[in-house]
Amino acid sequence: MKLVTFCLPDGRPEIGALVDGGIMQISKHLADAPNYMIGLIEGWSAFRDRLQALTASAPVDHVLDAVTLLAPVPRPPKILGIGLNYADHLAESGMDKPADQLWFAKMPTSATGPFAPIDLPRVSEQLDYEAELAFVIGKRCRHVPRVRAHEVIFGYCVANDVSVRDWQVRTSQFMLGKSFDTHAPFGPSIVTADEIADPHSLGIRCFVNGEKRQDSNTRELIFNCFEQVEHLSKVMTLEPGDLILSGTPGGVGVGSKPPRWLRAGDRVKVEIDGIGAIENIVQTEAK
Amino acid sequence: MKLVTFCLPDGRPEIGALVDGGIMQISKHLADAPNYMIGLIEGWSAFRDRLQALTASAPVDHVLDAVTLLAPVPRPPKILGIGLNYADHLAESGMDKPADQLWFAKMPTSATGPFAPIDLPRVSEQLDYEAELAFVIGKRCRHVPRVRAHEVIFGYCVANDVSVRDWQVRTSQFMLGKSFDTHAPFGPSIVTADEIADPHSLGIRCFVNGEKRQDSNTRELIFNCFEQVEHLSKVMTLEPGDLILSGTPGGVGVGSKPPRWLRAGDRVKVEIDGIGAIENIVQTEAK
Repeated sequence: MKLVTFCLPDGRPEIGALVDGGIMQISKHLADAPNYMIGLIEGWSAFRDRLQALTASAPVDHVLDAVTLLAPVPRPPKILGIGLNYADHLAESGMDKPADQLWFAKMPTSATGPFAPIDLPRVSEQLDYEAELAFVIGKRCRHVPRVRAHEVIFGYCVANDVSVRDWQVRTSQFMLGKSFDTHAPFGPSIVTADEIADPHSLGIRCFVNGEKRQDSNTRELIFNCFEQVEHLSKVMTLEPGDLILSGTPGGVGVGSKPPRWLRAGDRVKVEIDGIGAIENIVQTEAK
Repeated sequence: MKLVTFCLPDGRPEIGALVDGGIMQISKHLADAPNYMIGLIEGWSAFRDRLQALTASAPVDHVLDAVTLLAPVPRPPKILGIGLNYADHLAESGMDKPADQLWFAKMPTSATGPFAPIDLPRVSEQLDYEAELAFVIGKRCRHVPRVRAHEVIFGYCVANDVSVRDWQVRTSQFMLGKSFDTHAPFGPSIVTADEIADPHSLGIRCFVNGEKRQDSNTRELIFNCFEQVEHLSKVMTLEPGDLILSGTPGGVGVGSKPPRWLRAGDRVKVEIDGIGAIENIVQTEAK
């Protein structure tokens, strides 16, 4: 299933499933289901089969053009990103393969919709993109061995780990440069894990104004999604709705000589085979 | 006012104000007030004066021994910490004064109560304490100049930025070593900002099993709380309930030669003049 959070014209957020021709609004068909994504994920075992049956008859409550897609989880409890996790991105960064998984956080206030604008900040011009396969945690868990990690991954999304490079490296810690408001667009839906036969065999691409800048495959991940769950859950409890960004391939703007930064008006599209695409327009941060 | 979140014997969380002899339970006296701390903070202007008047007559609904104090904000939306922000801590770390504020994140799942146990993790023995003045954001805000930062600080707490040193430095990024479950105890209450004449003139101490290990004053902060708000809010929207840890003075365990790690059974107490004390016992992480 492909699950979305969307905004009705009156401003109310709703959740739904993508069906041929549009969106099935869950609250119109399953009165007992929660009306927000984390609630649906938490109660998934009680709703999955009925939702599956409903989507088979494909009732279209909204055509896609009539609503605004929001981030599938509007406010992930955690957003975690891993650095230097594709061989080709390592090469352009001039780095050796890391012995260890390199994790940083993006603040939850950076989450935004799959087609929402992303800010060119007032305080920097070094705005860059990073195409990433993201996954959403489905179960509260700790100390998950990699062979069982698939049990706690609810589904997959396309994400852009938007980065402000000067702020990322002005100290040793990446966090501020990764956490500007609007710098974690993701979606367009959550594709439930049962629909992704192998998350480690998906083409992933990024385009800026139509020009292909990143073009790789998730088989190039150094630490795969299951190893990532194992490592993170040694430290912390993972929870439904947590969003994990699994790394970006080569071709980011900072890797060009000279660097190619995003500018106001640029259109940045990230697409992953079997999941879909997100596209965000760069806008100057509002005064 | 000193505001607390506490747990009744039946397990229900409540919020209250400390009064002579115990706790005034807010829901028993202000039926229209929210029953969770972030709600109270968001609506503070509507409740402050009535609460102040109520506490003056000091109704004791619970003696302190009858309830369990929880983290005043049980789940801060963000927990941010600044590194190398006291001159004496810099000296023991062998570092120069940083030109810039060095920020990292602790995951919200690390939050715990002021007297709750802290875990000695399965995966490390390098457990360390960091006594810190913390503050809680009171208003949604962005781009706050330092001269107005006091307007968005709701109040102050005592915090322990518990750190797992090998995980903190196994990569360049501190986040995992700062984010183990139970590693952000804070409280015992939120002391509202109006009761702290000068947050930058407070004695701060840490004791392990009664032995004084850290002893400094917040006047030694390199970047003060107001400068911290200014810097963070250039990047991200700060929100009610966000918890900011303002740095730790010298005397941490990793600074001893050889390092002195916390062990199961150790009692770690952090106290700050005018705010209070928290005390946490180290326990081996449950299997």
